[in-house]
Formats: sequence, structure tokens, C-alpha cells
Amino acid sequence: MATRTFGAAVQRNIDDRLLTGRGHFIDDIDLPDVAHAAFARSPFARARIASIDADAARAHPGVLAVYTCEDIGHLDQDLPLLIPHQSLIGARTQRPLARDDVHYVGQTVAMVVAVDRYTAEDAVRLIEIDYEPLPVTVELEAAAGEGAHLVHPDVEGNVAAHFVQNSGDAASAFARADHVTKITVRVERSCAAPMEGRAVCARWDRITGQLTVWDGTQAPISVRGGLASLFDIDEDRVRVIAPDVGGGFGQKVLFFYPEEVLVPMASIGLDRPVKWIEDRTENFVGSTQERTQVHTIELAATRDGEVIGLRDSFLHDTGAFIPYGIAIAQVASTSIAGPYRIPNIEVEFKAIYTPTVPVTPYRGCGRPQSCFAIERAMDKLAEELGLDRFEVRRRNFIQPDQFPWKREGLLFADGLAVCYDSGDYPEALKKCAEAIGLDRLDELKAEARSRGKHLGLGLGFYVEGTGLGPYEGGHVRIHPITGKVYVNTGLAGQGQSHETVFAQIAADQLGVDPKDVIVVEGDTGAFDWGVATFASRAAVVSGNAIHKAAAKAREMVIEAAANMLEASKDDIELEDGKAKIAGSDRAVTLAEVATATNPLRYAFNKAAQSATQFAPASKHDGPPLAEGKAPGIEATDYYSPPYSTWAYGCHAALVEVDADLCSVAIRKYVCVHDCGNMINPTVVEGQVVGGMAQGLGGALYEKIIYDEDGNPRNAGFMDFLMPYATEMPKVDIVHMETPSPLNPLGVKGVGEAGTIAVPATVISGIEDALKPLGAGHFHEAPVFPHMIFEKLEAGDKAA
Amino acid sequence: MATRTFGAAVQRNIDDRLLTGRGHFIDDIDLPDVAHAAFARSPFARARIASIDADAARAHPGVLAVYTCEDIGHLDQDLPLLIPHQSLIGARTQRPLARDDVHYVGQTVAMVVAVDRYTAEDAVRLIEIDYEPLPVTVELEAAAGEGAHLVHPDVEGNVAAHFVQNSGDAASAFARADHVTKITVRVERSCAAPMEGRAVCARWDRITGQLTVWDGTQAPISVRGGLASLFDIDEDRVRVIAPDVGGGFGQKVLFFYPEEVLVPMASIGLDRPVKWIEDRTENFVGSTQERTQVHTIELAATRDGEVIGLRDSFLHDTGAFIPYGIAIAQVASTSIAGPYRIPNIEVEFKAIYTPTVPVTPYRGCGRPQSCFAIERAMDKLAEELGLDRFEVRRRNFIQPDQFPWKREGLLFADGLAVCYDSGDYPEALKKCAEAIGLDRLDELKAEARSRGKHLGLGLGFYVEGTGLGPYEGGHVRIHPITGKVYVNTGLAGQGQSHETVFAQIAADQLGVDPKDVIVVEGDTGAFDWGVATFASRAAVVSGNAIHKAAAKAREMVIEAAANMLEASKDDIELEDGKAKIAGSDRAVTLAEVATATNPLRYAFNKAAQSATQFAPASKHDGPPLAEGKAPGIEATDYYSPPYSTWAYGCHAALVEVDADLCSVAIRKYVCVHDCGNMINPTVVEGQVVGGMAQGLGGALYEKIIYDEDGNPRNAGFMDFLMPYATEMPKVDIVHMETPSPLNPLGVKGVGEAGTIAVPATVISGIEDALKPLGAGHFHEAPVFPHMIFEKLEAGDKAA
Repeated sequence: MATRTFGAAVQRNIDDRLLTGRGHFIDDIDLPDVAHAAFARSPFARARIASIDADAARAHPGVLAVYTCEDIGHLDQDLPLLIPHQSLIGARTQRPLARDDVHYVGQTVAMVVAVDRYTAEDAVRLIEIDYEPLPVTVELEAAAGEGAHLVHPDVEGNVAAHFVQNSGDAASAFARADHVTKITVRVERSCAAPMEGRAVCARWDRITGQLTVWDGTQAPISVRGGLASLFDIDEDRVRVIAPDVGGGFGQKVLFFYPEEVLVPMASIGLDRPVKWIEDRTENFVGSTQERTQVHTIELAATRDGEVIGLRDSFLHDTGAFIPYGIAIAQVASTSIAGPYRIPNIEVEFKAIYTPTVPVTPYRGCGRPQSCFAIERAMDKLAEELGLDRFEVRRRNFIQPDQFPWKREGLLFADGLAVCYDSGDYPEALKKCAEAIGLDRLDELKAEARSRGKHLGLGLGFYVEGTGLGPYEGGHVRIHPITGKVYVNTGLAGQGQSHETVFAQIAADQLGVDPKDVIVVEGDTGAFDWGVATFASRAAVVSGNAIHKAAAKAREMVIEAAANMLEASKDDIELEDGKAKIAGSDRAVTLAEVATATNPLRYAFNKAAQSATQFAPASKHDGPPLAEGKAPGIEATDYYSPPYSTWAYGCHAALVEVDADLCSVAIRKYVCVHDCGNMINPTVVEGQVVGGMAQGLGGALYEKIIYDEDGNPRNAGFMDFLMPYATEMPKVDIVHMETPSPLNPLGVKGVGEAGTIAVPATVISGIEDALKPLGAGHFHEAPVFPHMIFEKLEAGDKAA
Repeated sequence: MATRTFGAAVQRNIDDRLLTGRGHFIDDIDLPDVAHAAFARSPFARARIASIDADAARAHPGVLAVYTCEDIGHLDQDLPLLIPHQSLIGARTQRPLARDDVHYVGQTVAMVVAVDRYTAEDAVRLIEIDYEPLPVTVELEAAAGEGAHLVHPDVEGNVAAHFVQNSGDAASAFARADHVTKITVRVERSCAAPMEGRAVCARWDRITGQLTVWDGTQAPISVRGGLASLFDIDEDRVRVIAPDVGGGFGQKVLFFYPEEVLVPMASIGLDRPVKWIEDRTENFVGSTQERTQVHTIELAATRDGEVIGLRDSFLHDTGAFIPYGIAIAQVASTSIAGPYRIPNIEVEFKAIYTPTVPVTPYRGCGRPQSCFAIERAMDKLAEELGLDRFEVRRRNFIQPDQFPWKREGLLFADGLAVCYDSGDYPEALKKCAEAIGLDRLDELKAEARSRGKHLGLGLGFYVEGTGLGPYEGGHVRIHPITGKVYVNTGLAGQGQSHETVFAQIAADQLGVDPKDVIVVEGDTGAFDWGVATFASRAAVVSGNAIHKAAAKAREMVIEAAANMLEASKDDIELEDGKAKIAGSDRAVTLAEVATATNPLRYAFNKAAQSATQFAPASKHDGPPLAEGKAPGIEATDYYSPPYSTWAYGCHAALVEVDADLCSVAIRKYVCVHDCGNMINPTVVEGQVVGGMAQGLGGALYEKIIYDEDGNPRNAGFMDFLMPYATEMPKVDIVHMETPSPLNPLGVKGVGEAGTIAVPATVISGIEDALKPLGAGHFHEAPVFPHMIFEKLEAGDKAA
């Protein structure tokens, strides 16, 4: 039996290319005669545009065109509301170029296309835009309050959406509770900060009527569909390619950003390739962000700590527009009860417009906020009931035999009631306690105090609905010359190692080395049914589709090989790129099988016995290709999940605070996580650690700051703090594997897992560390040194 | 019920584009930085290359590279023998660039790539090639005779292949025959002379590792397979596109011509696009030709004209190489008995090398020669037995109730015994006699004589094995935005109206206007399983594959529409781009069906009720895409014929000869033909008339002339005569439609039909016209005026 590569720590097959500089990112695509775009962006959070004079820009040498909203014809329309929902009250999406009003600093107002970027930028500065500034209310709570200035004059109270959900009967639970814990938590806005910004390059081919767009998008198929509609070109004549893309994290799954529509438009209009590469400043003001939410959460508990009810009411900052509808708030609201049974839930939110960069999902998508809310509330409950934090969780966990666990009334992003598929939460907590060394905690705290430091234990538990549908497809073909296996899927990768794990999945079915599996994604010319890369869904949805397609191909290989070897199908084994008769040395290579199953041999085919056969000259009975058969070895299949798979995990940290410096150091960090069966532990670890780095930013460093006029104050890497490698602790990862019963591979998603619980964990650790100093509760994320200072000051005063 | 477009004279959907100059032929593909190739070609029919000095050429300004056989690495190998066969004795194929020896005038010896074609041509003239000429034997019979100079020193007697086939027992038939008729016929060499010559343009993309080749080939998929093997690039990274191609006629189905390998090689080597456009002189010396055969045919007959045996022995001129093996001679030999029962056949041929342009199939492929042989022999038999020409044919026809009619022992190109599938030959002859006005023949002859002219009746009957396997595929997809239907197949078109007839086939299944069906072929990026365009196979093989795929798509549409309309599948009709409930006005458009069957709506989709849904937010039971289902409306299927379909037809002509001028005029021409069910009579008529024009060239005008040293004497349109529109008679076409029982559409091929019988028909008419003048028999094609003059002189002398 062939060695299974599923589960093995296979080396990433893309590293060699990327690490030696042979990646091809969009800026590497060097089309002859390419023109370059640059954008005039609003310098005001809210203003009326009185006039635009682009004459000087148009006259500037090297400028090919200047576009305002007046120059883009039918594209001067609202960009799509991607997920409609009945709770949306005043859903507003952006136009490609602002008409009349601007709503945030950075909004696109005009586009210049010129012979090079320098010229285009110079010409942008020559466009005279007469703005009449308007007053703004920037802070979320204020924007939601009485008398706030409106982002959209016709949207009352800045309320974009208002939604209340009930599961069970929260009111009656609260009525009969022995104890109610109530806290308010606040999570700040951050951003994805991918290494490569967004980028679009478009080439219109007048001769063939084909539009090719290279777009650093997470959703090439959807972009193609939209562009085809917008430009009234049949989909088959639009090809969207997402080549190597340097990070996405959700920021690149919005479509359309203005640039994604305007650059192809200019290419068609100018009959010339046009390229736009986002610079870092643009990424801070022109690409979407996420996180700000303020939750007021209440837990209704029995005397012994069983939580029988939960009420959560939160405000969600959606920025100036709401292209994804309630996606983030919906995920936050439906994840609010975490791993706990809590049978009665009422959760209410309002999505509020603020005159800031629009908000769309960023790695975690609402989950870090709800995890922070429920986990900090559980800690508070434990404290109030005098229970151990571990114990209060243990008493409330959904038990391993209680799956599937359904929360009727809470509808997840797939439109179905939340339903956790599988897991072992008590075991995860137990492993976490062991790994962090809970039994030595007092000793460690004492040791820290002996050095003048304060050590605390941080704890955070998360659940995550992953593998969102509706479907993805997989296409598998064996190459008739080399026997290499090509795998196509409709996703696009931004560093998630799809090329490796999808190769492993196909390799197992076909008995080849994963190195001989070539995964092609992000190209609608290769496969064009599918959705996009987001929501930790690739392994679950594309992975299982590829598994199913490869299994079909395996059957074809076995049938053909059995014919070729005159053996029983039951005796055929696939191993080492060959189909063998078990227990013998008789075998045919996959290349030979792929050649033999095509009734036509092409010239020079090395795998063909007769090297050069073109038309068949050999005798055959019946048609050369039997009815219902296809030539070669090629199969397509789809996987469509019945509902989401729920990954989960438990983080713990030993957090050391220097009360003098108000600095925080993480002495030890443990991540127990369970994403079902692991395809590749190295890749899982990479995802977990990468996610944790972004989580750590949310815990201690990252906050997008706007001043009271709505000007971004730290829109650059000089001012916006991200954790470097120096800030990242070593992470002890403990794998658990509870297979998902929902899909053949038993996998769940892991892309966002690392991020979710970090703020809750680190900040609970700070709180625990500083409890002896009377610093009180830390219910905001991130925690900056000045906040520690203020808490300590307040604690001192209280003491 | 929707109107069926199958059988309707639908306007060709490509004419608008082509007639208004919006075609995109390879020379229209204007790649930036493209370099241009030109070739040094042998000026000798046979010579040894003593040395090549390319220094001056390499030093010429603007030259990027000069290649001789020494410079092309592993490509310095024999190009493929496309169809191996056991009868091949000394199969020789050409190398991309000659090594040591040249074998015909025009053979490629060196390639120059330069910044433009002018520079490349100038540099070609700077290459000093020292040839040592060798003696040659050019004429076919002489080359096959004793003491002939050899084309390949190691191939004895210039015999490339020798093959004898027997069906029944010819010897015993001849032994018991009452009468034996024996004649020798000769058919000369012609050429395809497409309006557009061959052309290759290649672009190597270093960044993506992709090779794109635009090639005016009839076989893009096979070219791709071969290039992938040769350059060791996986097939998925090689794309071959045959865009608009101005005529092929078999000349463009050879692969590889040297240029098809060398131009991509140069593009990869120079990392720059390279283009080569064949000029007219090159087409005459560097592209393949066909026709020269000399048949000695004998018929063994009973007293009353029943032919009980046939012996044919012929020489086939294969030129300097034999890349297609015995393809032409095999087709000629297996078609030799035409529509006649003749149960005992012995046919023998030798393929002979001559130091001339290599021979590969040209429209008709051996059939014009065998038709000329059998039809002229039947006329001679009639004359010798004192029977009417019509009557002797009637007595020998396979009867309508005798199909399938098998000739065991004669193996056709598909490797199976010749087996005629269906037909009504007596009816075709009857219709032909009626249409030509046989009953008024004496009157018309007298009228001509009254004007000093001589009128004769020409007659020719042909059969043609069409629809050769092994298979083709069809892919049908309905576009979710516009409802347009995309049809892809692996063929390539060169003017055969595939775009129209394939659209009709799909339109019928899906109830749409053929104008809304977009056929994409000739692009391995669109569909890459299949064979090529040749042997009158497109309608049969691709046509039925598309029919099957469209029928699958139809079922999908009906099922989805029944769900959408909450109706029974049995009540759904497809008409006018809609699926309707029969007898009601309730309907959904195909665009709506294609949208609804994809669980994902893309932004801006006009057909979606909700314009902008991205991720699904609606409730569903089970997976959004049911197990075993694929999204959208898309289907692929293949058709693989069990054996060839046999088209046939009968031509008759009233041929008027001016005995003083020795000129020939065709007064009336009738073509009765039967290609099974006709998809589009206009297209069928276009094929028939176009084929007839090339047949008329073979009857009266076209002959490639080599002098005794093997120099082509008429390699240009100034000297090589082709019929113009002024020479073409009006053709009265009589359609018969005997469906083929072998395929769902009941179609047979018609691409070559018009060509085959013309020489036999016209020349038998000349013979009949001049019989009163004692001019004797005309057993050579074409007949030039000087030949009539000589026959009349000889007749006068004999008288």
C-alpha cells in the first residue's frame, strides 16, 4: 500500500520558487506599452465636491486620459452590495469615482492614466477639486448617538443595519438566574497590512475581443462574472488571473474595489494595457479594514456557574460603506456563545456608518470580537462566583457526545442555524492547562515577583465556523507525456499553501509524489466554477472537491490499468507513479495509462509505445472510445458542504508585566487547536502562528487612529505598529484531530484559527498579572502601555 | 415545438466579420517586439551539403540568430512519422533543418531570426551554403524503375512502401471472366493553394513558463501535444491557437512542418515572440502537395457486364519524404471499387520517393485518383461490351437493401474493413441522368455540331469514406448573464462553416437562435481533447459530439426549469431562449436557468433576481449543490464512430470541345450527392462547389511541373494555372439524404465530396465529345489543350 501523504509534514512546494525570487506578482507582469493609473483621493472625511477641473492634468505631457465620474458612462453606479440581508436598513456602497459627495479620506475621486506612474501621480496633483468640507462624527458610539453628523444624509442615525436574534428564551433565563454578570468590551480597528498591496493589470485584446485582468484578488471567478456583466462581454471572453499574491487576509475579497473596475475600463477605452499597483499609503486609506465593535454582554448563571442565558448588544463600525452587508456582525453574533452550551441567547447589533475607510472581513471576521466578549465575560463570571476560570468553562462546555449541537434561531453565514459538527472541548482545555503548566503557576508567579515583575495566566477559548459553502470544484488530469498530475480549482491563494496541501490530497488518490502534482488556481482560464478564498474554507471545500475528483481519476486509472495489464481491478495498486499488480513487478506508469486511454497518440509522445501515431490504424471492436467514456484520465467533481464545520481551540499564555515600564512580555504561549484531520501539520502550524501574529497585533499593538475630523493619523508603517518577529513569542502548538463528520476528508478550516483567541488570552493574562496591584479589569483590545499605566494609577488611587 | 434549424439554410455567422475585414489571421496578431523568421531553402533537388558559413548572416545588423542543424540541439532529429504501417519499408521523414543531404528544392536548411522580415531575408542570402549536387530521377515511373537515382541512398528502388490487399479471390474471378478490360490511368500532381499560406507565431512567457503558439494548423491539439513533448513542457502550459485560417485542404494538417518546431524553439531561445508568415513561393516549395499516381486497373466481367473481379496496381508518388505513411495510397486502394459490388479485388501499390516536395493528403486524398481509375475503366468496359455507360453502372451497383456492404480484406484508414453504411446509388444515377437531360443528349450534340463544336456527356460516380475516428468532443455551456450558448470543440476551422453548423446543432437542442450560439474551436485553451480537421470528419465526429453534449445540457435545463417553474419535466419546452411550460406563458430564460443552477450569484448578474448576491444567505436543505451535480448548465460529451460513414454522389457534365482551338467548355454540370442528413444546405452547396473548383483544376488546369533536375517550373500563380471564377460552370446540385445509421444526427462528411469525381466526369465528357473524331481514350488528368491536339492528330493519322 502506498504511503499516504495526507497528514505528513510535506515541504511546501512553492517555497523554492518564491524564496529564489521567481514568484510572479502582478508588478512582475511587464506588458509592452503598459500605461499606469494613479488616483486622486479625497483629503476630507466628508465633503461636497463643488467642481473638478481636470484640464491641466489632461494637458500634462504623457497623460493618456483623466476620468471623473462624468467620464465613466454606465460605470458611474453603486458598486455591488455583495450580501443582501433583510436587516439592512440603509445599505450604501461606493461608486467607482465619487459623485457630489465624499465619505472618507482616501475615497477615489478621479483616475489618471499616463505613460508611467510618475507622470500619472504628477497629473493627479494637477486636478483641481473644489471640496466643501462637512462636519463629521468619527467615534463609533458617538456616530450611533443622538445628534451625530450623518455619513449618508438619508440614513438616519447612521444605522446601516439593525438585527436581533434569539435562540431559546433569554428573557426567562435571566428572570430565573441566580447571578448576572455584565461587562462592556471594546475592540479597536486594525487592518490586514498584506506584504503586497492590491494590484490590477488589464489587457484588452481588440482583435479577439478578450479581456484579461490580472488582479490580486481572493475571488477571481466572481470578479470575472462581475466584469463580464459590467462590460457586457461574455464570461468566456473574460479571463481573470490572480498570480502570486502576497497576502490577502480578507482585504482582497471585496469586489469591486473602484480600481478593479476602472483599470479594465481604461484598458478597453485606451486599447492599451493598464496597470495599477497600490502603494502603502493607499493600502491604509483605500483598502478595507475591520474590527471596531463595542459589546455589552450579560451572562445569566446559576449559583454553581452554569450559564443559562446570554444577552449581547453590540455596535459594529462599518466605516463609510457596507459592501458586505452584515457579514462581520452576523459572524460575531452567531459565534457569541463560543464553546458553551448556553441554551438561551439574545443577540442584537447595529451596524453604524462612520466617515472612515469601509469595513469588510479581515482574518477572523467578527470572531476575535465575540471571543473577546464571551471569554472576558466568563472570566468575570468566574471571579464573581469565586470559581476557577478553568472550572467555570468546564461546567459549561458542550460535551463530546452532544454533537451536532444546534443553536436554532442563530443563522450563520450559510443561512442555516448554527450547528457545531464535532469536537472535544474539555479535552482541549485539559491539554491546554497541562501544556501551560497550570500546576506550577503559583511558583512561576512568585519567581516573577522575585524579579520585580508580575506574571499572569491568560486564557481564551474559541470556536470558528469554517468551510463555508456553497461549493468549490476540483479538476484532475494526468499528463500523458510525463505522468504529472494537474489539479485545478477555482480558488486563489495568497500564501495559504494550497499548492502543497491540494497536491497531497490528489497524490494520495493517485499514488504519486506530491511533487509531481501541479496545482493551478487563481486562473479562470484553468477552472472557472467556484466561489473564492475566505472564511477558512479552502481545505474543506476545494480540498474535498479535489479529493472527490482525484478519487474518480483513481477509478479510471485502475480500470484502464487492469485492462492494460489484463488483471482484475481489485489487484491494482497505485504507487510511485505506477499502477501495479499487487505482489508482482508488473506495472504501467500513469503516463502510459493517460496515453493509452486516449485513442489518439500525439507525435513525440514518450509514453506511447509507438512513438508517433497520429490517426489510429489499428483494428478495434466498436468505437475507439466507448460510449459514455472520455479520453485520457481526467475528472471533475464538486464538494458542497451541508453546513459549516466548526474548528475550535484553546489558548493559554504566561504574560509578564513590568509595572514600572507598563510593558508586556509573553513568557510562554500554548495553542491547543483542533481543525479536524490535518492535511499537513507544517502548514497548519504556519497558519496558526501567522494568525497568532495578527492576533497579537490586535492584543497589544495595532489600532487605526482617526482624528476628530476623520483624518487617519497613522496610515503608514512608521506610525502603525505591527508585531515584528522580535515581538512574537515561541508558540507551543498542541494538535488535536476530531474529524468533521461532514466531509470525506474529515477536515475543518484553520486559516483564521490562530487569530481569534489571542486578544482574549493575552489581555486576560495582563489582568491576571496585575490583579494583585488592583488594576481591575481590562475590557479593551488592544492594551497599550498607557492603558496599563492608567489602570495602575486608578488602582493606586482606589487602594 | 421549436423550429428546428438542422437542415435549414442558415446564413453563415462568420461572414459578417470576415467580409468586413475583422478576421484575425496570424499575420494580424501584432505582438510587441516580435521578431521574424526567414529560411534558407535548398536550391537543389539532391545535393550534399559540404559546408555552411553563417558568419556574415550572423553579423548582419538586425539579425538575432541564425540556426543550422548544428544549432538546434535535440530538435535535430527526424520529424514524426505520423501513421506507422507495416507496409512501410523505408519510411523517411524530414529533419527541421537539413543535415548533410537535401532531398528536394525548397527543403529548409537554415533559419534566420531578425528584427523584421526584410532583414531576415537579406541575411538568408548572406548564408554561404556549399552544395555538391547529385543526380536525380524525377518522373514517378522512372524513379520506380531500374537504375533510378535514389532519393535516400539506403532506400532501394525508391520504394517507401509496398502493400497488397485482397478482398475475395480476384485470381479465380479473372480466370472465369467472359471479358477483361484493362487500362492505365495517370493523375498529375497539384497543390492546395490556400488563400492564406501557412503561418506560425510563438510567444514564450518566461514568467509563467507558458508557451503560446498561433499556428495556421488543422490540428492544434496534436501540435500542442507534440510541442509539449519536444520542449518538455507540460501540455497544460502549452497553448496552441489556430485563429482565422484562410484555407487548409489538408496541406495544414501535417505536423510538424519544420517551421512549426523552429519558430517556437526560437521564441523560447530568444525569449521574444517570433513570427513566420509563408510567402507564395514557399507555399509551392515548402508546403506539401498531392495527386501523382499511375494505376493499371483491370476489370473481369461477365458477358452482360457484371464486374466480378478487379485488379489494380499503382504507383504513388510520395515526394522526398513520407510523413503520413501510406495514408493517401491506402485511401486510394480501399476506394478503388467505388459504388460497385465487385466481390473480388486485388489491389497493390508502391509508394515511391521522388526528389520533390513531400506528398501528404490534399482534399480528396487518393480518391480522385481511384475514382478516375474505376470510372474510366467502367466506361471502357461499357464500350467494349457495347453497353450503355449508365446501364453497366446500374448492373453493378450495390443495392439500397445490401447495406452495410463490407469489403473484407480492404482495411480503411480506421484500421477496419471497408464497410459502406448506407446509400441509394441507383437513385442517384437516375436523378443525375434526369438532371443532365440524358433524353435530349442527341439533340444537344447535334446542336453543338451545327455550331462546329463537339458535345460529350461526362459521367463520374464516387464514394467517399468520411467521418474518420477515433473521436472528437463537444463542450456546451450556457452563459449565466446573457443566456448565450458557448460551444467548444477540439477541431480547427479553415473556412468550413463549423461556426454555423455546430451552432445549429446546439441551437436545436437548447431552443435558441443559432446566432446566440458562439462556437469556439482551434484553441487548446478552450477545449483540448480531439484529433484534427481532415477527411470530411468535422460534421460527423464533432457534430455528433456537440449534439450529445447539447442534449445533456438540454436535460439539465429541463430539470432545472421544471424545479423553478414547479412543473413536470415532461411539460417543459425549450424555445426562443426560454424554458416554457407547454401551453402556458410561464417561462424562465436560459440565462435565469444558468444563474439559478449555480448556488453562487456573482455581482451585477442581470439574470439574477437579486442583482448582487455573493455568498448565499438563503436557507437550504442539504448541500446547496446536490451530490453528483455540477453548478450551472455545462456538459461535455464525445462521439467516437464505430466505423466510417460513406458519402457518395454522381456527377454528369455536358462538355463542349472546340476541335480547332482544342479548348473545352462545360455547358452544364450536374452534381447529385448524398452526405446523409444535411445540417445546412447552403454550407453543403458551398463545400460541393468549392470542392468542384479544385476538382476542375485537376481535370483541366493544374499540374505541378518539375524539370529533369527536379526544379519546380511553375511555382507561382503566374505559371501555375488554377480555375478562376470565369472557368467555373454553374453547378446544378441535387441533394439526396440517406441518413447514416451510425450516428445520432445521421450525417456523413461532405468536405471533399465535390472534388473527387470532377476529373473522371469532365474527361469522360471530352472523350465522348471527340469520339466521332477518332481521338480515342483520355486516361490522363488533367487534359490540356495540347493533349487534345495530339489525340486529334493521332486520330486523323489513324483514320
